[in-house]
Amino acid sequence: AKVSDVTHDAGDKGPFKHFMMKEIHEQPEAITNSLEGRITETGVVTETFGAGANELLSGIEHVQIVACGTSYNSGMVARYWFEEIAGVTCQVEIASEYRYRTSVVPKNALFITLSQSGETADTLAALTKAKTQGYASTLSICNVPGSSLVRESDLAFMMRAGVEIGVASSKAFTVQLVGLMLLVLSIAKHRGVDEAIIANIVKGLRELPGQIQQSLSLEPVIEALAEDFADKHHALFLGRGSQYPIAMEGALKLKEISYIHAEAYAAGELKHGPLALIDSDMPVIVVAPNNDLLEKLSSNMEEVRARGGQLYVFADKNAHFEAGEGLKLIELDHIDDALAPILYTIPLQLLSYYVAIIKGTDVDQPRNLAKSVTVE
Amino acid sequence: AKVSDVTHDAGDKGPFKHFMMKEIHEQPEAITNSLEGRITETGVVTETFGAGANELLSGIEHVQIVACGTSYNSGMVARYWFEEIAGVTCQVEIASEYRYRTSVVPKNALFITLSQSGETADTLAALTKAKTQGYASTLSICNVPGSSLVRESDLAFMMRAGVEIGVASSKAFTVQLVGLMLLVLSIAKHRGVDEAIIANIVKGLRELPGQIQQSLSLEPVIEALAEDFADKHHALFLGRGSQYPIAMEGALKLKEISYIHAEAYAAGELKHGPLALIDSDMPVIVVAPNNDLLEKLSSNMEEVRARGGQLYVFADKNAHFEAGEGLKLIELDHIDDALAPILYTIPLQLLSYYVAIIKGTDVDQPRNLAKSVTVE
Repeated sequence: AKVSDVTHDAGDKGPFKHFMMKEIHEQPEAITNSLEGRITETGVVTETFGAGANELLSGIEHVQIVACGTSYNSGMVARYWFEEIAGVTCQVEIASEYRYRTSVVPKNALFITLSQSGETADTLAALTKAKTQGYASTLSICNVPGSSLVRESDLAFMMRAGVEIGVASSKAFTVQLVGLMLLVLSIAKHRGVDEAIIANIVKGLRELPGQIQQSLSLEPVIEALAEDFADKHHALFLGRGSQYPIAMEGALKLKEISYIHAEAYAAGELKHGPLALIDSDMPVIVVAPNNDLLEKLSSNMEEVRARGGQLYVFADKNAHFEAGEGLKLIELDHIDDALAPILYTIPLQLLSYYVAIIKGTDVDQPRNLAKSVTVE
Repeated sequence: AKVSDVTHDAGDKGPFKHFMMKEIHEQPEAITNSLEGRITETGVVTETFGAGANELLSGIEHVQIVACGTSYNSGMVARYWFEEIAGVTCQVEIASEYRYRTSVVPKNALFITLSQSGETADTLAALTKAKTQGYASTLSICNVPGSSLVRESDLAFMMRAGVEIGVASSKAFTVQLVGLMLLVLSIAKHRGVDEAIIANIVKGLRELPGQIQQSLSLEPVIEALAEDFADKHHALFLGRGSQYPIAMEGALKLKEISYIHAEAYAAGELKHGPLALIDSDMPVIVVAPNNDLLEKLSSNMEEVRARGGQLYVFADKNAHFEAGEGLKLIELDHIDDALAPILYTIPLQLLSYYVAIIKGTDVDQPRNLAKSVTVE
């Protein structure tokens, strides 16, 4: 597929029917742009986050992320990364909740806001509040230079994803994740994390655009699979670990543009409630990059199948999982766990797009939603 | 309504058709039992949590709660309380997630598990892991004396809710919240929080059984209202602040026993996705004890109404909110914010029960679910 030049043809759909599909296809280039000049052979250029970043990030022991919608989901992925890779505690909260509650700020804490536009009203209000609460520093990850969040923060990561026109975010989500991973690695270095671990993830980031390009070749497979959702009004997305927020994002996309009531659950919670909902009207989508989750899901799968439910499993080729009755398998090339959430986002974006096409909705401008929520 | 004697007639439905309804009606007495000998005129008897509690709780600066299903929702309520009332940071996590990820433990942190049975497999595994991670202490809130979680924890709060037979938890949830509030107040006292604030909440706890008894008189109103849900397959529950987890619990109850696909959102997130789903098939339930949330929701309400959606608002009598076209109002007696989440749980339990009755499901033993999830 042709990749648009994100710098020059924003506002033009190129060969694509919708901006959203164009933006899905722009992800390899958008990620390449976002990495340009920001990584070395083995690490992250700390100035990536602005002047003084090296000093401001050096003593960080806790990270508080605040965001809305899709950006909240990317923050949730980063939480797993901050604790596992950088060894700092991390909390993530919905901006409209954070701004109105009384919260306690740990020592040496960094306050991070995520917003494509940099103008999301609740997120901006949360930042204004945070600046009175004693955080060590504030940092924003945004796609719009000079936006309010960027201006109001000590540090910023400019995404360089190019203009995003589709109301349902696609490339802004994956580029946010790239920015968050660069931040995780910068803080990890300050914390004395083994340089080989950092260098290995940097190598993975360099290979990521190519892997995403490869995953886009699943398009015809997913287009065909979308037919199964034509008469559905519900869907359940399951993930575990850092793929749980990817299940959340997959469900949000389907909800936003196809108006299917999709909901995500941490896979282990299935037995604590949602299993009661499963029948032939409720397809179950599983994001399972390694076979740990698949093993743990096997008993649930039997229950889902027994009730006529259909499973759609996105899994690593190397896991050698087998399709069968009631289980459709979509295999992706192997990728290390750390960056897997970014890669597994792509087929879920494609799924929501093709289901929306079948449903006949207005993909780029779904009903009731605005691109940038600048009011409360 | 006759209140069952929780000590003597477990196993007997008394005048009720289902154990769940019996257990809903037992809440005033269960809460009275759970408070017995544990509060003074102005504070909490620290030995409530076991021998050595006074010393073990004295230096706590961070709380990590781990639980599954309904217990997770009660932990989410407590998070608002710990930060606002006790001034300690608090994180809440699903047990199946906590046990498998690499997490960072702050200094002087208390690890809390919540489980009615005390035997939930994932929660027990999370506790086993936590004991190797350097927490200052561990505490469990359970309903079954001598259960695994109680035996494995340094401290315990025994709920004394009486046997709970309905698979969908009711009285165990509200009594868990009472136990959590007693813990919040104990830690608040150690942190030097104003004694008048603590005494005021203790007074509120003493009045709570009576207020819950009063709220049960809404039963005929809610039974009538449940008719509206007879042909529905979806529902959206909205809350804000410490009522957001009550919306989560309301949605979980409806899901578990009526098989309606109910989902909860923090009210401020409505514009970031779920608004696309709203039409006449998607009733919207709002838990809004004070009029702050109602004001903020007014623009959303207009959008919900414009799309033929029906709002059901549970609100404080003193807020003098008005019903109207597309908005049904269920008013509750005034209660202070701190304990409001417990009181607002009751009408949502009644709603899920009466919708299940109309749907003709097996209320006490919903399909696919077990009372105590003792396997992974």
